[in-house]
Order: sequence, then structure tokens, then C-alpha cells
Amino acid sequence: MKKREEQIVDKKFSWEENIRKVVPYVPGEQPKCQNMIKLNTNECPYPPSPLVEKALREFDHRDLRLYPDPNASILTEELAKYYGVEAEQVFVGVGSDDVLAMAFMTFFNSGSPILFPDITYSFYDVWAELYRIPYKMIPLKEDFTIDPKDYQVENGGIVLPNPNAPTGILESLAFIEEILTANRDVVVIVDEAYIDFGGESALPLLKKYDNLLIVQTFSKSRAMAGMRIGYAIGNEKLISYLHHVKFSFNSYTMDSITLSLGTASVKDEAYFRETLAKVIKTREWSKEKLKELGFIFEDSKSNFIFASHPEKKAEEIYAYLRSKNIFVRYFKKPRIDNYLRISIGTDEEMEILVKELTEFLM
Amino acid sequence: MKKREEQIVDKKFSWEENIRKVVPYVPGEQPKCQNMIKLNTNECPYPPSPLVEKALREFDHRDLRLYPDPNASILTEELAKYYGVEAEQVFVGVGSDDVLAMAFMTFFNSGSPILFPDITYSFYDVWAELYRIPYKMIPLKEDFTIDPKDYQVENGGIVLPNPNAPTGILESLAFIEEILTANRDVVVIVDEAYIDFGGESALPLLKKYDNLLIVQTFSKSRAMAGMRIGYAIGNEKLISYLHHVKFSFNSYTMDSITLSLGTASVKDEAYFRETLAKVIKTREWSKEKLKELGFIFEDSKSNFIFASHPEKKAEEIYAYLRSKNIFVRYFKKPRIDNYLRISIGTDEEMEILVKELTEFLM
Repeated sequence: MKKREEQIVDKKFSWEENIRKVVPYVPGEQPKCQNMIKLNTNECPYPPSPLVEKALREFDHRDLRLYPDPNASILTEELAKYYGVEAEQVFVGVGSDDVLAMAFMTFFNSGSPILFPDITYSFYDVWAELYRIPYKMIPLKEDFTIDPKDYQVENGGIVLPNPNAPTGILESLAFIEEILTANRDVVVIVDEAYIDFGGESALPLLKKYDNLLIVQTFSKSRAMAGMRIGYAIGNEKLISYLHHVKFSFNSYTMDSITLSLGTASVKDEAYFRETLAKVIKTREWSKEKLKELGFIFEDSKSNFIFASHPEKKAEEIYAYLRSKNIFVRYFKKPRIDNYLRISIGTDEEMEILVKELTEFLM
Repeated sequence: MKKREEQIVDKKFSWEENIRKVVPYVPGEQPKCQNMIKLNTNECPYPPSPLVEKALREFDHRDLRLYPDPNASILTEELAKYYGVEAEQVFVGVGSDDVLAMAFMTFFNSGSPILFPDITYSFYDVWAELYRIPYKMIPLKEDFTIDPKDYQVENGGIVLPNPNAPTGILESLAFIEEILTANRDVVVIVDEAYIDFGGESALPLLKKYDNLLIVQTFSKSRAMAGMRIGYAIGNEKLISYLHHVKFSFNSYTMDSITLSLGTASVKDEAYFRETLAKVIKTREWSKEKLKELGFIFEDSKSNFIFASHPEKKAEEIYAYLRSKNIFVRYFKKPRIDNYLRISIGTDEEMEILVKELTEFLM
């Protein structure tokens, strides 16, 4: 088998010259062990709403023979109602990765570089490369916060995650507004994948700023990473341009089951709030315990903690935890190669994590 | 409301200058009437396999909190087994639209125009425009067949649907091979969305031609349009390039439920064959009846018939059927604006269609 693969890789085909070659993005590890504690991809430790289960049980498989609604109306309308906006202000896609990639393709089309932090979601530069969008990564300050002045230069657009990942640091609405005010001629994307865990969404700024696009996801706070739902909210014209590009690419991206289950999730506000409260409570407990163990970290308003330890190398801690079947995220990248990103699990999972860390560090 | 929309459309925002503007593709009509007969988007009139229903009933909603397998292994491995190829030769996506769009982006990257017929799947030129790929549409012959000599000129790649849509005409493997032989330096995509309804797949040519990419879908013959599954089969290196681009775009396009239900469908060969046989039988019956009514059409090996009538304008027949709650597809496009594309429904649906056509024409 190995030999066969090598032959394929070595062989040069004549059609290869004119194809698009990209540095392949390697997705985060999705280990498949039994009884592992999985704290490496910021998934929610609790299941989706019982209304999602009900929608799944009631879905009629015979409906699958028909194409889904290309406008994803039930879901966009439910989201619009939830956020108090028009349905025409909502765009849905196959995870926020799909939504963000479409937004990059649609809005970042000038000769000037788009701007985003050097330490941030690792897909931004991948999309910029893929769509050949010039870009400039702006270094975070030493304490991993963002200096809004750095974003007041000539640019072709801006992407800011708030809270930022993997740092978990939240910026204020005043900060977001400062950047919007200084950049009225380009589209500013605020990636709010983690906003539900304690941040304030930029939604109220939509009335004032027609160049603002807010992107959120069902993968974290709604416990539906496996279902692939992301969405963008913005000015109706901004959203219409996004729809034009999406319809030029694939009219039917959201399948019928996803539309039904996604809608059910949005309807269950009580369960949503309850789940968030549990995750936040566990996060605060985990912060205390990690602090006691000597870990250093900025305050996180997300569902993970980005921490380093003054006495032990992050890579070593990562390897130790792995040997104990506990998976956290380690990035072998400049500036952050001594940090671990630890997703918030259940209380039981975090207790085991703390126990193992105590064993290793003490 | 109308007024609000007009204001939005009229208003020119300063960020609009540098965004990507595309002519929005308008998806085919998806009417939502009660008791309609829907013969306009080539959906299967029968439900998906009972194994799909079983997989749906057994899916544990709690698993949705986790990201899906980015490699979509259960589905790619099942497809590989089914077709007798390696798993590394299979690429899956959100419908064949997703697969084809990724293939256009990956493989059509030279300065020479890609080639496809003037009458064909209406998305090819949309993708070419979107990705700024130069293209040349080659007119079909008068009888709607393809002249392989037309594809023996300098080009940056070729896309051929077989059977072609909306004509339904099938070309032979010798024809496909003639085009492959003459175009070893570019990627040739054969879009086999309708191949299961009586055509011979180009799969056996894969061993000989490393530049061949075959694309198929679950939307027609597998009755799963609502689930969004398409796939490509080709040389391992070809497929690896496609994966590189896909992973640069969105690592998790195939959700967990889709992977499970798609796999279940492939496992039920008996049901698949039975459904196909029913559709083919109804198609042949429908051909007879349409001929008796004076319709003219080339032989179709797909799940639709592309027909015109010497005495009545297609647009009028279309409007009449619509008034009777029967939806067929009418394209207001040069060369085909006197044709109707009629999907094959159940026996009962086709009997009602024939009855209404008789009423209108006789």
C-alpha cells in the first residue's frame, strides 16, 4: 500500500501544470478513542436541545427525495425573529466556515490587503490564499489584545473574531465601533463564533453601520458542530450580494434535515440559556483551579481557556495529557507555542483534567 | 415593505465598489402547492431506501455536538467498495454542485478556455464566471448530439455531461474515450448525474486515463436530493488535489447525519436497482404515450424526456399544465425555447400528465 502511494505521489501527470495548488489545510485532530476526554475542538459538552431530538425523530425520510428549499426560509426566518432583524438580513451556510469563505470571496475583492490579527482563527489566511486576496496579518500586542489603531490604515476589508480565538479575549462594543467608524468604505466582518459565552454581540451596531457583517455558528453554543450550520447577519444589500455569490456556487447547500433541526434549536431559548450557564460556570471553576496550579492566562469569555505554565512546556503538558487520553489543543506556531487551548467540558471531565494536571505538575 | 426594499436597492453604499458582483443564478422553481405533480427538477418519485429511514431513526442526536469526520470516511469507503476503487479515489461533497464547483476551481486554472456544450447543465458557465475561468460553449449539432471533433482543439479543460441535460441524450464510452485520448494534458470531467438510468459509466476508463474525473450524485437515482450528496471518482492524485482545495475552503462540509444516511443508501443495492427499474419502465411507457400525442424527442436515457410538439408552443403547454397543477421545466433560452423537460414521476402521475396533455392537444 505504502509503495503504491509513493508511486502516485512521485508520478508527474501532464495535466498537473495548470491546476490550482494550495498548501493543504490540515484539520484539527478528531481522535476516535474510547473513553477519551475531548477538549481540543471547542465542542459543547452537552447535547443539542430536546426539540432538536424531536425534530430528528419526526423527520419524514420520504421528504429527502425532494430538493431542499434553496432559500432555507424556515431557518433564516427563525433566526431573523430571534435576533429582531428582517429575514433578508440573514444568510445561512454549511458551518461558519462556509459563510466566512463566501464572505471573503464576495467582499474582499480590491487590490488593498485585508487585515486580521497574526494570532487568530487559522482559516483566514487559508481563504485569502485560496481566493488570491492580498492580506496583512497585524501582530497582537504582547498581552494578546488588539490595538484598534493598527486597523486605521489603507485596507481592502477587515476580519476580527470577537472573542478572538485561540486567545479567548473579548473586546468591547466601543472597540468594534472604533474600527467600523474608521473603515466605512470596506466590509468589516466580526466573527462571533464564541460570543454567546459572555460577550456582547455587535448586533446593535447594524443599524448604524451598513458595512458590518456579523458571523455566528451553531457549532459551539448550540452544540451542533456535527450538523454544520453557520450564519451571517448584516445590512440587506450586503446579504443580497452574499446570496448572489452563493447561488452561483451551489443553490442547495443546506439540506432538509439540517434546516429542520437548526430551526428547532433556535426555538428552544430556555435550553440554550441553561446550557450556556452550565458551560460558563464550569469555565469559571476551571479558571480557579488552573490558577491554583500556576497556569497563566488572560480572562476568557469563550468556551475555552488559553493557558501557559511558567515551569512546564505546553508541548510536554499536551503530550502527558494525551497519554492519559485527555485531548487538548496545542499549536506549534510562533508566539503561541507555549500555550494550550483547553475547551470547557463537563464538570466531571474538568475535574479529571485538573487531577491529571496536579499529578503532572506537583 | 416594497418601499423599504426599493430604498435598499437604490442606495449606493461606499463599500460596494470593491466587491465581487455576479449575475445571480436563479434556482429552478420549487413550488409548494398541495397535491401538485412535480415533474420539473428531475427528482425521484420514490422515497430513499428503507435502510436510509432506519439510519435516520437510529441516529443519536447527542452525536451532533461533535464535529463530523472531516474525511467522510464511512461514506467514501462505502462508495469505494461499491465501485471497486480505492477510498483515495473518491471525493464527496454537498451535492454534485459542490463537487463540480470545487473541481472547476481546482483543475481549470490555465489561460486557455474550457469547453462544454452550448446546451447543457446551466451551472457550468455560472461557475466559470464566478472563478473567472475562460470558457467556450460549443454548439451541439442540430440533432442535439455532440461532435467529438469539436473537442479536439486547444483548451484548458473539458466538461461533458453524459447523458447530457436537458437533452437526455447518451453518448457511448467510445465517444468519451475519443475525447480523453485527444485531451491528455487537461482534466476531462464527465458529469454522470443521470448515468444510472440506462447509461454506461466511464468508470472502466479510469484505469487508462489519469485525467478523467467522473462526477455523480445521490439526488436523482438515489432519491436523496434533500440530503445533498455528490461525489467524484478519479485518479488518486487528481482526487488529492481536490481534497487540498476542499480542506482550504471548509473541512467539515458533510454533516454527520448525511454521512450516515448516504452510507445506508449505498448499502441497499436491491432497492436501488428496483427503484431504477420502476423509473425506466415508466419512462418507456411515457415515451410511447408522448409519441402518440405527436411529441418529438430524441431517445432519453435519463429520468426525464426533453420534448417538443410540432403544433403547440412549449411555453403554452407549460402554462396549461401549470394551470392544472402539473409542473414541468421550460427554459426560455435560444435553441431550446420550444422544448419541455418532463421528469419521470410515478405511473399515476404520468397517467394524469398524459390525460391533461390529451385534453389540451386533441
